Amino acid sequence: MKDKITTLDRPIQVKKFGGTSVGSIERIHNVARIVIESLKNNYPVVVASAMSGETNRLVALAEEAFPHYKGPAYDMLLASGEQVAIALLAMAIERQGYKAKPYLAHQIGIQTDNVSSKARIQHIQTEQILKDLKEGIIPIIAGFQGVDENFNITTLGRGGSDTSAVAIAAALKADACEIYTDVPAVFSADPRLVPLAKEIKELTFEEMMEMASLGSKVLHIRSVELAAKFGVKIHVRSSFQEREGTWVMDSVQNLEKPVVSSVTHDANTSVVKINNLPEGVSGLAQLFEHLAQKGIVVDIISQTHLPEGQRLAFSVPSEDLYQAVTITQNLFTQMHKLPAQIETMDKVAKVSIVGVGMRNHPGVAAHFFKILAKQNIPIFLVTTSEIKVSAIIPSESLQKAAQSLHTAFSLDQLSKET
Amino acid sequence: MKDKITTLDRPIQVKKFGGTSVGSIERIHNVARIVIESLKNNYPVVVASAMSGETNRLVALAEEAFPHYKGPAYDMLLASGEQVAIALLAMAIERQGYKAKPYLAHQIGIQTDNVSSKARIQHIQTEQILKDLKEGIIPIIAGFQGVDENFNITTLGRGGSDTSAVAIAAALKADACEIYTDVPAVFSADPRLVPLAKEIKELTFEEMMEMASLGSKVLHIRSVELAAKFGVKIHVRSSFQEREGTWVMDSVQNLEKPVVSSVTHDANTSVVKINNLPEGVSGLAQLFEHLAQKGIVVDIISQTHLPEGQRLAFSVPSEDLYQAVTITQNLFTQMHKLPAQIETMDKVAKVSIVGVGMRNHPGVAAHFFKILAKQNIPIFLVTTSEIKVSAIIPSESLQKAAQSLHTAFSLDQLSKET
Repeated sequence: MKDKITTLDRPIQVKKFGGTSVGSIERIHNVARIVIESLKNNYPVVVASAMSGETNRLVALAEEAFPHYKGPAYDMLLASGEQVAIALLAMAIERQGYKAKPYLAHQIGIQTDNVSSKARIQHIQTEQILKDLKEGIIPIIAGFQGVDENFNITTLGRGGSDTSAVAIAAALKADACEIYTDVPAVFSADPRLVPLAKEIKELTFEEMMEMASLGSKVLHIRSVELAAKFGVKIHVRSSFQEREGTWVMDSVQNLEKPVVSSVTHDANTSVVKINNLPEGVSGLAQLFEHLAQKGIVVDIISQTHLPEGQRLAFSVPSEDLYQAVTITQNLFTQMHKLPAQIETMDKVAKVSIVGVGMRNHPGVAAHFFKILAKQNIPIFLVTTSEIKVSAIIPSESLQKAAQSLHTAFSLDQLSKET
Repeated sequence: MKDKITTLDRPIQVKKFGGTSVGSIERIHNVARIVIESLKNNYPVVVASAMSGETNRLVALAEEAFPHYKGPAYDMLLASGEQVAIALLAMAIERQGYKAKPYLAHQIGIQTDNVSSKARIQHIQTEQILKDLKEGIIPIIAGFQGVDENFNITTLGRGGSDTSAVAIAAALKADACEIYTDVPAVFSADPRLVPLAKEIKELTFEEMMEMASLGSKVLHIRSVELAAKFGVKIHVRSSFQEREGTWVMDSVQNLEKPVVSSVTHDANTSVVKINNLPEGVSGLAQLFEHLAQKGIVVDIISQTHLPEGQRLAFSVPSEDLYQAVTITQNLFTQMHKLPAQIETMDKVAKVSIVGVGMRNHPGVAAHFFKILAKQNIPIFLVTTSEIKVSAIIPSESLQKAAQSLHTAFSLDQLSKET
């Protein structure tokens, strides 16, 4: 145990452990060892998720108590998962003879807005954490949760613990934010879908942001946005293997940067179509404003003008489909005094390619469409940016699409150990 | 949903639901119905325990993470159980179209001392609760937990939700505190042990306090102490049957009050014996002070002087046996520079008779010993008070002892429906 000190003589490092990393007491003891080991070179500040399976268990209970309910009670319910994990982790560290203290969001001052289950961090107090570090205490902070101005517990959305970790790293001006997870690195595609996917050594914030927003589950998108904003280097690595993973930072070293760095997919996407939208744009603006207010992220939007009226289609995360349809129908009925003709597509998926190299290589989008066309894969919605191309395609074509794109953009691993 | 009002026109009633009452979502919906139904005649303020099994699950995780650990992390861990229950109950009530708000101890200001896992409530703020009631919101408060002056979560010990409920009732000057549980009333003995046990209609605080301290699981002893201190009537009743249970209050109506009102037992007791205690009393005082500081309740104490020195025996709750032995051994070695010869007995149980009528009937203790002697049941430790007689006996004789006492003191049900 350390004596009390007045200044910190080693860098602060935030270490975030995901659900699988703390998925059992045995794994929690493993995390305790990683944290204690890092005391040699750093002052670790730990952020933990709920034990794997726990959040799903709580969501299932909530669905049974009040289907589709969102509100403060829901956030309070879900936040209990992290509470259990940090308490157990603090105990596991104390068992090894080190001091650790578990903190909930309200105890450490992780202030958020009041958007239930999709809150955003506004401010983090650092006094208590710094005091603990100086006293040789390892702070173990609950990820995923915050507290609003009325002392309600809020949660940051699935995967929000990454965001907690990066925000804490930014507030503490930490050297780096290490995200420990159950994969050794970020891959050029999901290896379950594309067996030849390879590990990526370095990525820019921009690329990682696109990948996260396009369905890569490795990092929560808001965490990458925050990391980019505050210049916090992220290191994605395995909690089960002691080796380097993927660094996500401002700019990458690799001169031989490929045009496309990854193929990303999102099976959890759905499409809402409105077939009888009256002409005019005010309705559209109001619809998307309403959806945004409820925290529903609309992804790809497509609008077509036909003789019989405007048609609108947009994609949303599948878990928001029900709420999106309800909001759309209510607003439409209220504005146009007739029911909307709404069609939904839930057997769809999004496949995307991402790479900062695309900026200097025109024609990437054309190549993307050609590859899918060659496989006879229909495209329902499409969107592009400077560094990505995405398409909504039938779910059953997802694997074929991802594999063809991965091969065509030269991402396949050269040799696979057998 | 109610409009905002300025004064409360119906009595406030605290309703506490135990673990089995909220043991599944179906049961939580049942509780929601009971609460909503009571809006007609009362302003219900709800206190809930963790879903049954949950606290045991958390205790098991803690034991695996760090055996015998007690400290703030442990309290944080255990408090998560009530958090889940109140969030789900609030959702279930909202589903029926009523407003409910779940509150954790720190959100409502349930202030305690800082004794980990056996904290005592010092103060409860009522402003928010009263504000909610006036706004037609049903407050759903986490039982079992509090917050100390450093914002640490504390817990009140197993069964502590009863204490939360009575303390809240006292703070609100509520009409009554209804304790909903899985039994229809308090019985004259545990029906599993004594099949002829009968329901008790009314009990005094004194009797209930003795019964609770002697092992009756129906109410947490501290809750009865508080109820007596603040004159809060307690109504123990079933959450599964709509009928009166047992009222616990200052004095009872029944003129034909029996001498003994119940036979109580505690299978969860253990004995610590020290066989080489040097003469003198300072060591004893210090030992019991140390045990008290750790929150270990020493029950029966017996001291004998033999030619070879003092012998001391005392009983403690079985879950505290390990800690009691450790504290005793450490203190003894430190004071007397030699190891204590400690013997423990964990295959023992306590059987007791309780009744305010004993005050006016001398010879009850003698009768108690005669009944046990007739059954050839040895007595290891014994203690009496004005209204109870207790003995530590072998576990295997417990049922025989309880049944003989119940019959001998005329407590058997006159006719059992068959």
